[in-house]
Amino acid sequence: MRAVRYHGNRDVRVDDIAEPECRPGFVKIAPEWCGICGSDVHEYLVGPETIPAPGAPHPITGETLPVVLGHEYAGTVVEVGDGVDGVNVGDRVAVEPIIRDNDCPSCLAGHYNLCPQLGFHGLSGYGGGLAEFSVVPGYMVHVLPDEVPTDAAALIEPLAVGWHAAKMAELRDGDSVLIIGAGPIGLVTLLAVKLMGAGEVVVVELSSARKAKAAELGADLVLDPAHDDVAAVLAERFGQGVDVAFDAGGNAATIALALSSVRPKGRVVNIALWEHPVEFDMFSMLFKESNLTASCAYCNDHGEVIDALATGRIDVTPLITGRITFEDVVTGGIEQLIDNRDAHVKILVHP
Amino acid sequence: MRAVRYHGNRDVRVDDIAEPECRPGFVKIAPEWCGICGSDVHEYLVGPETIPAPGAPHPITGETLPVVLGHEYAGTVVEVGDGVDGVNVGDRVAVEPIIRDNDCPSCLAGHYNLCPQLGFHGLSGYGGGLAEFSVVPGYMVHVLPDEVPTDAAALIEPLAVGWHAAKMAELRDGDSVLIIGAGPIGLVTLLAVKLMGAGEVVVVELSSARKAKAAELGADLVLDPAHDDVAAVLAERFGQGVDVAFDAGGNAATIALALSSVRPKGRVVNIALWEHPVEFDMFSMLFKESNLTASCAYCNDHGEVIDALATGRIDVTPLITGRITFEDVVTGGIEQLIDNRDAHVKILVHP
Repeated sequence: MRAVRYHGNRDVRVDDIAEPECRPGFVKIAPEWCGICGSDVHEYLVGPETIPAPGAPHPITGETLPVVLGHEYAGTVVEVGDGVDGVNVGDRVAVEPIIRDNDCPSCLAGHYNLCPQLGFHGLSGYGGGLAEFSVVPGYMVHVLPDEVPTDAAALIEPLAVGWHAAKMAELRDGDSVLIIGAGPIGLVTLLAVKLMGAGEVVVVELSSARKAKAAELGADLVLDPAHDDVAAVLAERFGQGVDVAFDAGGNAATIALALSSVRPKGRVVNIALWEHPVEFDMFSMLFKESNLTASCAYCNDHGEVIDALATGRIDVTPLITGRITFEDVVTGGIEQLIDNRDAHVKILVHP
Repeated sequence: MRAVRYHGNRDVRVDDIAEPECRPGFVKIAPEWCGICGSDVHEYLVGPETIPAPGAPHPITGETLPVVLGHEYAGTVVEVGDGVDGVNVGDRVAVEPIIRDNDCPSCLAGHYNLCPQLGFHGLSGYGGGLAEFSVVPGYMVHVLPDEVPTDAAALIEPLAVGWHAAKMAELRDGDSVLIIGAGPIGLVTLLAVKLMGAGEVVVVELSSARKAKAAELGADLVLDPAHDDVAAVLAERFGQGVDVAFDAGGNAATIALALSSVRPKGRVVNIALWEHPVEFDMFSMLFKESNLTASCAYCNDHGEVIDALATGRIDVTPLITGRITFEDVVTGGIEQLIDNRDAHVKILVHP
């Protein structure tokens, strides 16, 4: 079968590989739509990092590159292994790609996103969604209701990241929210907090395309630190500060802005992957007794996201900015997301 | 009357000053015992910092140095101004020294410890406890029950700092706790968490005198990073990590240890005053979704601390390591806490 595989830094190819076989406890899927994630782009540019390099197999999968890419996908079930209940051949399904480890206390406690060996189907081995077929453990499969189209379902995975972040913020009805950074993760967080009852939502972003997207998706105010005095505008609008700030930037300036923007007892949630440690001023927390946490992927969020899509409470159509096939995955996909990143949120790939 | 006043860096004197007059809404006290705080020592060594310097009056008190020192004290009421209820001449009282600002949203919301102008009687002006008499607003006064001796009551203020930190940690029964640093604030936090139902409590400390004090006050295990492999011992004892860690050190190494020592979903509470920003690695929080907050002084904690003392659930006697008079406050007090810091926790001063 054809599959998009990562062979190393700037080396992604469409290969002809053996079709995976279904087995007890697993489900075989024909992927229909698969998103390209920022982490796929990151691996292309500076990896292998999360993808296991030669000589350093992933501790759970035991695999090293080349690995099949694609962890944001949905498709149709073609075979169901023994012992998997609630899934039938022909069902359309979304895949929740975190690999669970039966020896891990976090996985066994239900916090599978906090597994010390955290691995993803589509990055760490065990196949992926950029292939004609994938085989995944039954726990990864979420059956889609009729109301959720398969292309929209490819966005359930990134939506779950925003959903989880909003839950980590313990958002209360009417809470004012600041989101710093309007890349894909900032935007899905915007969708999630709006749905969870946020009051005013302010987005801070530099890129004009992303600023427009944030406004289109419902931000009440979009500020550009290159032109706006963000601190002054926030002080004028919110007095002592916003209730909740999300840092989707992941650098010293963005976390400092998040911490300085919340009110006394306010909450800051990091949703960025930081490239390196940064300077951090505890006094920005101390005299407000603010609270900082970090949101990691998702955990038991997919069902709620699917329900929000099925009931029409979230519309992901504006997030889809491109549709390509396997053959275009590098030039029309990954490299578009590098060279033309501001024009894109999510590019979907079809076999 | 005689009063101990701060005139500037390394300049603390016993002065003869005018006796303060009581007025409506205020209470006049004859202080009996007053503790010397680490922040008094800090002002002596590197101040004026919190104490308002000439030309920069405190925004609430309007005062600059010289100011009367002493914010950890108890004494006897000698006069009660009109409009103050529940306090009578002859009552023994403890003083809660945070100054409240009627124009401050935090103070009005009841978070008086988060006042942006945070000021303390005994540091920021309005007099202090190291004087023959002090006059304080009625809200600062807590009447002592017979069971709480006046010398022990001088420790209510630092105890409230530890009490507040333990409450900020949302301690649950049986939670394992790590306390990094066994100076006065680490030790009062140890007393508070033990009383609030902590399970195993581990203290990390370098000084041998403070290690002994931590053990005396009930630490289940005391580790010395100069001799013990702290991370290995904690991993062996707690598996995925402790439930709660308190950083009473306030530097890059202590916050890194706190963050690395907690379990997934664990809580870190900063109780230190940091001297400068430090390098901070968000990844140490991200893959555990741990939670970081900072505890600032106290707020509505004094009543609970007084109750704990009155019912004998906390014994502060081991914390009192010296008793001196005004005339000894520099050589026998502040300088002892600098030159001989490991031998002391709290030195009490009597007029």
